[in-house]
Amino acid sequence: MGLGEIWFTEKHNPASGFSLKVDRFIYETRSQFQRIVVFDNADYERVFLLDDLIMLTEKDEFTYHEMLTQPTLFTHKNPKNVLIIGGGDGGTAREILKHKMIKEVDMVEIDKEVIETSKRFLKFCGKAFKDKRLKITIGDGIKYVKETNKKYDLIFVDSTDPIGMAKGLFSKSFYRNCYKILKEDGILTTLSESPFNDPKWTKEIFNNLKEVFKNVFLYLSFVPAYPSGVWSFCMASKIYHPLKNFQEERYKNFKSKTKYYNKEIHFACFCLPEFVKDLINA
Amino acid sequence: MGLGEIWFTEKHNPASGFSLKVDRFIYETRSQFQRIVVFDNADYERVFLLDDLIMLTEKDEFTYHEMLTQPTLFTHKNPKNVLIIGGGDGGTAREILKHKMIKEVDMVEIDKEVIETSKRFLKFCGKAFKDKRLKITIGDGIKYVKETNKKYDLIFVDSTDPIGMAKGLFSKSFYRNCYKILKEDGILTTLSESPFNDPKWTKEIFNNLKEVFKNVFLYLSFVPAYPSGVWSFCMASKIYHPLKNFQEERYKNFKSKTKYYNKEIHFACFCLPEFVKDLINA
Repeated sequence: MGLGEIWFTEKHNPASGFSLKVDRFIYETRSQFQRIVVFDNADYERVFLLDDLIMLTEKDEFTYHEMLTQPTLFTHKNPKNVLIIGGGDGGTAREILKHKMIKEVDMVEIDKEVIETSKRFLKFCGKAFKDKRLKITIGDGIKYVKETNKKYDLIFVDSTDPIGMAKGLFSKSFYRNCYKILKEDGILTTLSESPFNDPKWTKEIFNNLKEVFKNVFLYLSFVPAYPSGVWSFCMASKIYHPLKNFQEERYKNFKSKTKYYNKEIHFACFCLPEFVKDLINA
Repeated sequence: MGLGEIWFTEKHNPASGFSLKVDRFIYETRSQFQRIVVFDNADYERVFLLDDLIMLTEKDEFTYHEMLTQPTLFTHKNPKNVLIIGGGDGGTAREILKHKMIKEVDMVEIDKEVIETSKRFLKFCGKAFKDKRLKITIGDGIKYVKETNKKYDLIFVDSTDPIGMAKGLFSKSFYRNCYKILKEDGILTTLSESPFNDPKWTKEIFNNLKEVFKNVFLYLSFVPAYPSGVWSFCMASKIYHPLKNFQEERYKNFKSKTKYYNKEIHFACFCLPEFVKDLINA
């Protein structure tokens, strides 16, 4: 008797990886830029891959999207104009748009197929696409930050790993252009990979930001479906300090729900294990 | 041309799992209680399995062993006598014995083959076995806490998952017996599984402890090789409070190295994401 099963395995390194059973293939396409796959899994629900790497799963995406955005949104005194580089699935925009004082979110996504896929198959992420404050530009984020005349309160980098076409989104020159288009109290926040699984990347991103921004704060979140589950972000700020400028009043009046972020986590996420401190201080 | 590879996969649920390449088999035996396997992996170095579940890997065991023990060791004012239930690999004893004021550590391990395996193949964990303060009893922890006349400052439960023979180590009656053999200011700390991957277990362990101890504090650590990487522990205390009773002076004078635990983590690990709060408050 045959007994076949389809499994997806993401190797985090040559000798280790995370495996998900493909219980049901939902969608696959090859865009101009990458392979896009959507499938359902009994444990992690809907799964979204770009070039065979997990971008998000329905079960754990809240950890990543909330923690990329909420600490920064509750640090800036009065953010109104926000830029997202990448983020075509819509999860990051969804989190930002939970805040009523946000007037406008520009999303610059290179691959319109990602947005189309999200609208059709990742509805738990994609409800931001119905919000009129979201303006989508299909284009290259590196070029956009170089050429735009707009100024932003906040920039979020929500991209794939720093290899291939996304590499430039972690470079000093990109960060310099972000700095220029941020207002005088602006903040740039980016994913910065796993300090456990890919410490070199985390260190390099942190150091590149340090050369451009006065204040760079590394913080951590559990993201179960990402390599090792230990995930980091960098908040690069012109003047604000996430611990000193926590927006207590706004937090108290916040009406939307979060499943990960809260006031205690706002402070705790910046407390780093010794091995992470050693990594960024070395 | 054939191209074979040996892979170990631990399913965390029927449709997801963590996979490690078996680069080199080191040891295998079947003890009276369980299958014991040791192998080397290029990413996680030496790996130790009991009944085909990862107990520890050389690369990430510091996260688990430090976080099971150090928050409690830096909460109790003057711990001298410690009981470990399980912990036959020696990692937990190693952490406890970093503290000079510890006079005696009793380890009650049911499977002497685990200790023998650790002594031979897990030397990074097993150096505690050379410390004269460590006394080993081969036996059943459940029976031991019921029958012993000794009294302890601290008890650590360092076992396999709450299934099969380890199930009783998470029961109310076991916790009641632990309470009895703890001194009037004693603390029991146990692993409490992944609130992301196995929320029912975490909730049940927390609730069982709450029925016996006045103060139960759930806290979290990254443990990359455990299911989802989100790992929890419960500190059940008669009088001490981990935040109010942090032993600052002792921390300042602590001479041993830690790779995860530090003062900031001591406080931050008790800050819980919303989904974990919801789980234990429901």
